[in-house]
Amino acid sequence: MARRLHREFLHRFDQLRAAMRTLRLTVAYDGSAYAGWQWQPQQKTVQGAIEDALARVTGESTRVVASGRTDTGVHALGQVVAFQTDTRLSNEVLARALNAELPDDVAVLDIKPARDGFDPIREAVRKRYRYVIHDGTGRDVFRRRYCWHIKWRLDVEAMQRAALALLGKHDFRSFETDWPSRVSSVRTVYVLDVRRGTDDEADLVMFEVEADGFLYNMVRNIVGTLVEVGRGNEPESWPGEVLAAGDRREAGPKAPAHGLFLVRVVYDE
Amino acid sequence: MARRLHREFLHRFDQLRAAMRTLRLTVAYDGSAYAGWQWQPQQKTVQGAIEDALARVTGESTRVVASGRTDTGVHALGQVVAFQTDTRLSNEVLARALNAELPDDVAVLDIKPARDGFDPIREAVRKRYRYVIHDGTGRDVFRRRYCWHIKWRLDVEAMQRAALALLGKHDFRSFETDWPSRVSSVRTVYVLDVRRGTDDEADLVMFEVEADGFLYNMVRNIVGTLVEVGRGNEPESWPGEVLAAGDRREAGPKAPAHGLFLVRVVYDE
Repeated sequence: MARRLHREFLHRFDQLRAAMRTLRLTVAYDGSAYAGWQWQPQQKTVQGAIEDALARVTGESTRVVASGRTDTGVHALGQVVAFQTDTRLSNEVLARALNAELPDDVAVLDIKPARDGFDPIREAVRKRYRYVIHDGTGRDVFRRRYCWHIKWRLDVEAMQRAALALLGKHDFRSFETDWPSRVSSVRTVYVLDVRRGTDDEADLVMFEVEADGFLYNMVRNIVGTLVEVGRGNEPESWPGEVLAAGDRREAGPKAPAHGLFLVRVVYDE
Repeated sequence: MARRLHREFLHRFDQLRAAMRTLRLTVAYDGSAYAGWQWQPQQKTVQGAIEDALARVTGESTRVVASGRTDTGVHALGQVVAFQTDTRLSNEVLARALNAELPDDVAVLDIKPARDGFDPIREAVRKRYRYVIHDGTGRDVFRRRYCWHIKWRLDVEAMQRAALALLGKHDFRSFETDWPSRVSSVRTVYVLDVRRGTDDEADLVMFEVEADGFLYNMVRNIVGTLVEVGRGNEPESWPGEVLAAGDRREAGPKAPAHGLFLVRVVYDE
């Protein structure tokens, strides 16, 4: 009798599991009002906002997993989020329903089916971040949540030249807050581009950083270090020396969170 | 005795008045968090924020006057504000001190001396407004406070052709909410430009409107009317017919406040 019940249970479990689909959301959020991505009791978090919307739309209590956590105030243009669901809604209808339920600072851009067992953290092969600095003299009331405002005009060419030393495969522990937090601090940086905007954006400096993975606060520590060069406080050779030192205390101060955007996460399809 | 006292009083009053300077501020604000420009009890207003900052910096309780009121949620890139002050701070130091005291969604861009008796409302010879529409399908979390989001792709060329009928000197009462609120509803529109953005802004439609003055909600009512053409609900000839009808009920619905920016106010120098 017990065996039959057990067999029946396993069968039902398989049926249920078969009905569950894994979905992959691409979401954008303005992180200004959130205590970061990760759910925390009594705090407004992006994960909490998405799980609440999913619960209202599907009636399911679902846990969602992102490609990585973003800190308080950090924004996303294309965060990737996976979850399992039993809903029969089409992906298009689900996206519309979620957008109707989500607060207006979180938006679903896209829903795609994912392979069963898809892991958005481990399977990410590349990530791209953008960091934006406003180096005009006046305060910009419309950009205040999306740029680090610096009062000194930065030397973009010097920062771009200094950044070359950080391209490629290196041990980036000098740029990790609270090293060691990962098994290895070796990462490969594919893109590290520093440019000044044009026209309306001539007082913006944009950093684009793409790597196979990032250590904790790595982009913000790199930007803070390059800014020391851009201000003329340190020579162009310094970021390479910081990298070689393998010591966080050598690097510049961490750039603030609100200039940082997670642009996209790339997976092998 | 009474005459001497009276003379002394007049003399002191003249001295005090002579010491008072009239200053002209150019300010930018993100109107999202404000119940409009004008001071109201128990409400957060831009006027209130500026008067509070002035009181903290100068120790004076000062009334400031803007070139015109902006409604709840309307933004300004270059609002002009005048006030009198006894402060001995230089204009540059005063600007820095005000910016340090102002909330981060209001910024002083410039302080200039103005002629005694300068009236920023009556002396304005031209004003320019911008209205921004986002007509992409997805929600844009970063633009939500600064654009009207429309889900239909607008025909910019049709709107631009339709707008031609509104250029020049006309009675704009059809585009005034609560007509008549001014002595005359005749205004001259010098610029009424509709264009689509490029690159990152290809899903933005921008209206630039410059006139010798504006009736209440005139820009929002014109934009709402042109959008009916852009959506294909009305023919290109319709806005000209609305103008000719001289009746607000003929016009399209008023566009929402948060897409509107006061760009600049021009004075005869």
